[in-house]
This record gives sequence, structure tokens and C-alpha cells, in this order.
Amino acid sequence: MPKPPEMHLGLMVFGAGNHVAGWRMPDAQFGSENLPLLQHLARTAERGKFDFLFFADAVNTGLNAHPAMMLRLEPLTLLAALAMTTTHIGLAATVSTTYTEPYNLARAFASIDHMSGGRAGWNVVTGSSPDAAANFSRDKHPPHAERYAMAAEYLTVVKGLWDSWEEGAVVGDKERGIFVDPAKLHVLDHEGEFYKVKGPLNITRPPQGYPVIMQAGASDTGRDLAATTAEVVFTVQQDLDEAIAFANDLRDRCEAVGRPRDAIRIMPGVCPVIGKTVAEAKARIAELASLADPNAALKVLSDRLGHDLSGFPLDEPLPELPPSAMMQGHATTLASIARRHGMTLRELRDYTAASSGHRVIYGTPDMIADELEEWVVKGAAHGFIIKPTHVPGPFEEFVDEVVPILVRRGLFRKDYSGRTLREHFGLARPAHPSQAKAAARLEPGQGVVPASGASRTA
Amino acid sequence: MPKPPEMHLGLMVFGAGNHVAGWRMPDAQFGSENLPLLQHLARTAERGKFDFLFFADAVNTGLNAHPAMMLRLEPLTLLAALAMTTTHIGLAATVSTTYTEPYNLARAFASIDHMSGGRAGWNVVTGSSPDAAANFSRDKHPPHAERYAMAAEYLTVVKGLWDSWEEGAVVGDKERGIFVDPAKLHVLDHEGEFYKVKGPLNITRPPQGYPVIMQAGASDTGRDLAATTAEVVFTVQQDLDEAIAFANDLRDRCEAVGRPRDAIRIMPGVCPVIGKTVAEAKARIAELASLADPNAALKVLSDRLGHDLSGFPLDEPLPELPPSAMMQGHATTLASIARRHGMTLRELRDYTAASSGHRVIYGTPDMIADELEEWVVKGAAHGFIIKPTHVPGPFEEFVDEVVPILVRRGLFRKDYSGRTLREHFGLARPAHPSQAKAAARLEPGQGVVPASGASRTA
Repeated sequence: MPKPPEMHLGLMVFGAGNHVAGWRMPDAQFGSENLPLLQHLARTAERGKFDFLFFADAVNTGLNAHPAMMLRLEPLTLLAALAMTTTHIGLAATVSTTYTEPYNLARAFASIDHMSGGRAGWNVVTGSSPDAAANFSRDKHPPHAERYAMAAEYLTVVKGLWDSWEEGAVVGDKERGIFVDPAKLHVLDHEGEFYKVKGPLNITRPPQGYPVIMQAGASDTGRDLAATTAEVVFTVQQDLDEAIAFANDLRDRCEAVGRPRDAIRIMPGVCPVIGKTVAEAKARIAELASLADPNAALKVLSDRLGHDLSGFPLDEPLPELPPSAMMQGHATTLASIARRHGMTLRELRDYTAASSGHRVIYGTPDMIADELEEWVVKGAAHGFIIKPTHVPGPFEEFVDEVVPILVRRGLFRKDYSGRTLREHFGLARPAHPSQAKAAARLEPGQGVVPASGASRTA
Repeated sequence: MPKPPEMHLGLMVFGAGNHVAGWRMPDAQFGSENLPLLQHLARTAERGKFDFLFFADAVNTGLNAHPAMMLRLEPLTLLAALAMTTTHIGLAATVSTTYTEPYNLARAFASIDHMSGGRAGWNVVTGSSPDAAANFSRDKHPPHAERYAMAAEYLTVVKGLWDSWEEGAVVGDKERGIFVDPAKLHVLDHEGEFYKVKGPLNITRPPQGYPVIMQAGASDTGRDLAATTAEVVFTVQQDLDEAIAFANDLRDRCEAVGRPRDAIRIMPGVCPVIGKTVAEAKARIAELASLADPNAALKVLSDRLGHDLSGFPLDEPLPELPPSAMMQGHATTLASIARRHGMTLRELRDYTAASSGHRVIYGTPDMIADELEEWVVKGAAHGFIIKPTHVPGPFEEFVDEVVPILVRRGLFRKDYSGRTLREHFGLARPAHPSQAKAAARLEPGQGVVPASGASRTA
């Protein structure tokens, strides 16, 4: 019998729950500023041997934002704090390339990677909400293509800054008074179309070489950027065949740019609703739907489709909508579900509210495990971002009831075998460019640059 | 007998020691990326009931940077991490207004203030090194006056963002499905000369209202900004009479803008060199001087005077130098010391190397306590930033040998009486502008805005 594939699991930490009404459930604790709750979720995920925690982010808010996103701790400082109260789990967050200076971002992520012992991950986004521009003295949010061109250059800059100091640069020789080895300093001197950054960075190379690079863009441009630079890709796929097609497309694109086909870990978001019986799970979904504010729920769908749907009749099919430049992955997937299942706008609204447009699976723990197993075995995913409807109960159930089944089936780790996020994912540590070059000179023809190192900047 | 004044103490955390050669001492541990060392210093300062820890910062580096500043953890993520391993001590750091977006800074400090339970402090600087511009896609570092005009507007923006959500905005009423009270949302809508920031911020008001606002600018413009907005001012005074004159000037400027004369806590930096005898303390200074690289030491002085001194004869008096726009406080103070004591350039270099230009005091623990007491009793200072030559030994000595003397004399707290940094400093919590206005309507003529709240933006 062949060894089953190794599954990876991340927890999407939404302090008020992923379901738009999750916080209203009788057993829900809530608050994205509720540090004790967030620490408890982190410890629970670590008890379940999850690969990582993940915090989505946005740099704007308002009264119609999702309750989990409206008011929240800032992700980089939060990751640093959680690094102190956990020991193994990876710590990842979204930071926009459009609204943060690359020097500041490179420092902060390097700092988190150092303090956590190599557990940092960065979800590279270009910023999905045009409203953010108004918080940053900008007249407009740059258009899609420009944002992606900026992001590609930004990644080059940030990796170059992380490479400022080769490993071993700090000598600390008290006797001879040598603090650093000047030969190991590399000044970036970047001048590009969007950024001009001299360097060096004022922190040594992160323990992981680079924090794990994550992306979620599903547009054509987004997939190209992912194929070139991503190590983990978050997806919104809901249908097995579509997910396999997406995964294969990403593998093709990796191959086209000279990376191995398995360079990227593909991680769809999944909202598991667990019951002792199917009926109990369904009742829980119905209870959540009954608590959802209809306008808030429709806003979640409108954001994902890139159109304000408040004027459309709820009991008719989803209207035909012109393409939007926002969240293209969500828009395509949700329209496809609605078509396939003949959903009304009301039905699609309630479905989307449950998990911000990600896939909802429900049933007994064994049924949930079956669903996860099938996608991994069939090559549609390497694992999943788990998005509990509310917290902490439903996530504790997942860890206590579903994870042990995955472990028994040989699909998921019984304990951590590594200490860094790269090790959890089986991603190689990118060598410093100058060391990779030196190795290449010594052993011509040998593949000295590991798979995940192919995205290094030269 | 009148009650002695209450002294405040901060620790300037320099992972390689404040002395340019501190890291070379046989008993020195070192490294500004050495988290266990930094955590130990934080715990030691908390054991000594210090008001706060302070991390200076810069957004550029190079081989000739001070060993403590060359390679270092990023301060905001570091403060967040230290918030998890301490319980009472204040956590402050420098962040430049010139190179960080106000929305990002406001979020990060609010987040640290929440996670630490109200212990955050922000040292507002405009950026002293012109080399930083090259790391931020800028052609030049803005000139002094423009940087200060930007900083003043920046503070208005950041305070306005912190006031986005009035206290009590989060209702969290599960029954009625009310997550927040819309009436407590305040949209900033700032449009100024340098910044255009709509808001609201995506985090509730910090526990302290605003983190404690600290400043160090000693120029005329810098003192005016401090008089209007600072609650703590770091100084580089070395002479008692000059320090009294500086403190009184700051008090006059506060009064001139309508704040109480005692609105600001004045905190000179001090490097204490402790010995069982004076001779032992002097020997320690000599040992440190013998370990200092002459070029590195001269670079510290050159940075402070704003002129490259490497071409000048070492055994002649300090040359006459034209005024510089850099670190004006240091430049004036060091030139004054050199004149007063008839120092050669070599002597001034070695003196400056000990503590980056701050005052060095040496002797037995009682003598150190005497020096500190005199300045506080005579109104030259409210307390001191302690800058150990190296770590951790000399700082442990200060906590174990000098602090108990200050406590016995009634000059320093025996234990914390509050939990927030404002409480340690005796600074009132600024009320939310709309609540302050409401209170003013109810009780006309009463001073309902506390002293430290006078700097609020309306």
C-alpha cells in the first residue's frame, strides 16, 4: 500500500468567527482584539500539530466590515506576541505590498522570524480594497496590473534586503575586536521601476533564509506571480474537479518558469461544520444562518463578487455581472457554485456568509476527514486552511475529533518533526545567493539550489 | 521634612552595551538580536521597578554603525514580544515619522498598548540620519524644518486615528445582534499639508487613550514641538546648571502654549559606572576605553556633532565647527563640555564613546545615588534613562546596589502602584475628545481636561 500523502493544516484565526454571525452563537467567545482568546486558539492549533496560524488583514475598516475584521490587533505585532506563547506552530499574516514600505516590512518579518526561531510566513497581497488608498495619502488604489507589477518588484527588494548579511556575518570576537565580517555584507542598491532601496537591512538573515512566501491571487496575473515566487498558495476552490484543474494549472505555470511542479503547497480554505450526526451539523448551519444580519451577509457576498448586490431580487438566480478586478478567485468560484446548484441569490448569500465564500463541509468527524482526504489524495490540495464558523468550540472539536482520524489514517503528523515553518511544509531553506553561487561553482551540473530556492533573487 | 520628589527611571536597552566597546568586556553578553538577553534585561528592569524600557531606532545601518545599532530586532515587534514576558514595565521605542505611514504606526502602537495592558510609549523622532532616505525610495531626507512640520501634522493624524472609536464602541450584544455602537465611531477625514488620511482606524482606542508621547529634539523647533505635544522628553544635558536652564525653558514653553509647567517629565540619559571604590569605577572606564576602536569611537562623536572629525588632530582642542542640522542637543552639550573642561579631541572622543554622548557618572553606589538625587531635587530632571556601558552585569549592579539606596531615601518606588506607563509617570489618561467636550458642557469652568490631555487634538 502506498504511503498516503502528507496533509498540511493551517488555522485562519478570525476572532469573531468566520461565519458573519458566528460571534452570536451561545457558546462563542469573540473579539479580534481578545488576546487571551487568540492565545488559546494558537495553543489549541499547536496541540493539534497544525502547520501554522494565519491572520488575514486589511488596512481599512467601517461599520459594514466583517465583525472579525472590523476591529483587530495589528498582525505583525500580534505574531510577535504569539511567538512568545507558542513553541512550534508557524505564524503567518497578510501584509499588503501596496501600503507598507519594503524596508519596514523586511525588518518586521525578519524580526518575527528571529524571535520565533524560524516560524514566520508572509501572505503577499497587493490590497484588495480600493478604500485603503484614502488612509495612505493616496488619491487612488493602483489598478490591478500595476499592483502586481509593484508586488513582483517589491518581493525582489524584500528578499534582497533579507540577504544583506550572509550567514556568519556576526563574528563577535572580543579578543580581536571584530564585531562583524565586512566580507559578508551585501549592499542591495536596488533601483527599479517602483522602488529605490539601497540597503543593507539592519537585521541578520532570517533563520528560514526567507520567511515562507504565501499568496492568494487567483487571477491570471496572480497565478503568474505565484508560479514565480510563492511557496504556499491559498485558494477558494469549492469543487473537486475545478480544484484539480486549478492545481494543475499552477503546476504547469511553475514548470514554465523553471520551478519543480511540486514547488507550491496548495491550501484551499475550508469551513468544517461538525455534528454527531449529519442532522446535528445541518441544524448548526441553520442556527448560524438564522442569526445572520441579512445586510451584513449580502455585504460579504458583494465584496467577493465585486458588485453591490443590494438592489437585486433575493429569490431569483444570481444575476449576470460584468467581470470585476476584485477577488477574482472568489467571484469565479461562487458564480460557478450558484450555476451548478441552481442557487437563488438568497441561498448563495447564506452560503457565502458561513465562511466568507470558502467551501463549507459538514457532517460527522469521519465524513469531514473523508472530504479532506479525497482532495489531498486526488491532487487537488496539499492541505487546508481551517475556518471555524465561530470560536473556540468548533475549532476545539476539529482538533479533538477530526485531527486524530487524519493521524490514524496516516495523513497527518502525530507530532512535529521540525521546528521551522519551512520544515513543517517540507520546503527547503533558500541558500544565500552568494553561497548558492559558490556551491554551483564547486559542483557544476548538480542541483544545488533547492526547489523552494528557485524564487531567490540573484 | 518635605516629601522628596518622585524619581522616574528608564532603561535604554542597547544589546551590545552603550559603550562603543562594551561588548568586548570579559563579562559582557551582547547582541541586539539576542532575545534571551533582551528578555533578561527587561525582567531585571522590572525587578528594579523601572518605569520603562526604551529602544532607540534607526532605519539605516552600515559597518560603521554602533555595534548595538548595526543589527537589531525591529522595535515594534520586539515590544510586542516583551509585553508577553513582562507584566508591569512600560515598553517604549523610537519610530520615525518620516519613514512610516501614520495609519500603520497608529495601528501597531495601539496593538502593543492593548496587548501590554497600557504600557506602550512612542518616542517621536523625525529621523536623524539622511542616509535613511535611500532605503525608502526617496531622493533626499527632508530638511529639518519640514521634518518637524510633518511630525506635528503626523501626531495630529495619529491621535485622531486613535480616537476613531470612542470607549464603549464594542457592544457585542449577542441577543440583539449589535456588534458595535455606530454613534461611537468617529471618522477622521484629515486633509493637511503633508497627509490625507480618512480613517477610521481598525482597532479600538488604546487602553492609555494614547500611548505615552516621548520626544528628544533639543533644537528650537524640537523644543516647540515637545512643548505642544510631548509628555516625556529625553535630554542629553551633562551640566547641572545647563540642565536646569533647559528644564525651565521647556516649562516656559509649555506655559506659553497653555499647558501646565509640569506637563512634561524630563529624563536626561545617564551612564552610571559603579565601583566598590572610585578607583575601581575609574579603572573600569579605563578598561573600556582601552578596548574601543579609535575610528568607531570617533564616528560616534562625528555623528553627534554632525561633522566628520577624522581629519582633525586628536591632541588639540575641539575645532570650531559650523552649526549642523543633526542632533543639535548633543552638538551643543558636547561642545560645552569640551570647552568647560579644556578637553582635547581625543578626550572628548573617549568620553563620548562611553555613552554615545550622554552624561557619565562614576563612583560607589552611594555616590551615583547622590548625583541622581541632586538633579531631581534641584529641578533639573524628573528622572533618568539609564545607559549601562555593557550588559547585563553593570545593569544588574545598578538595580541591586543603587536602586535600593534611592528607595531608602524615599526617592523611588518600592513597588509599582499602577499598571500602565501613564500611571507609573503620574500622567493622566487623555479623555476621548468627544467625552472631554461633553464633560466641559456639563461642568463649565472646571478643569476637566487633565494636564496631559492638553495635547489632544480636537
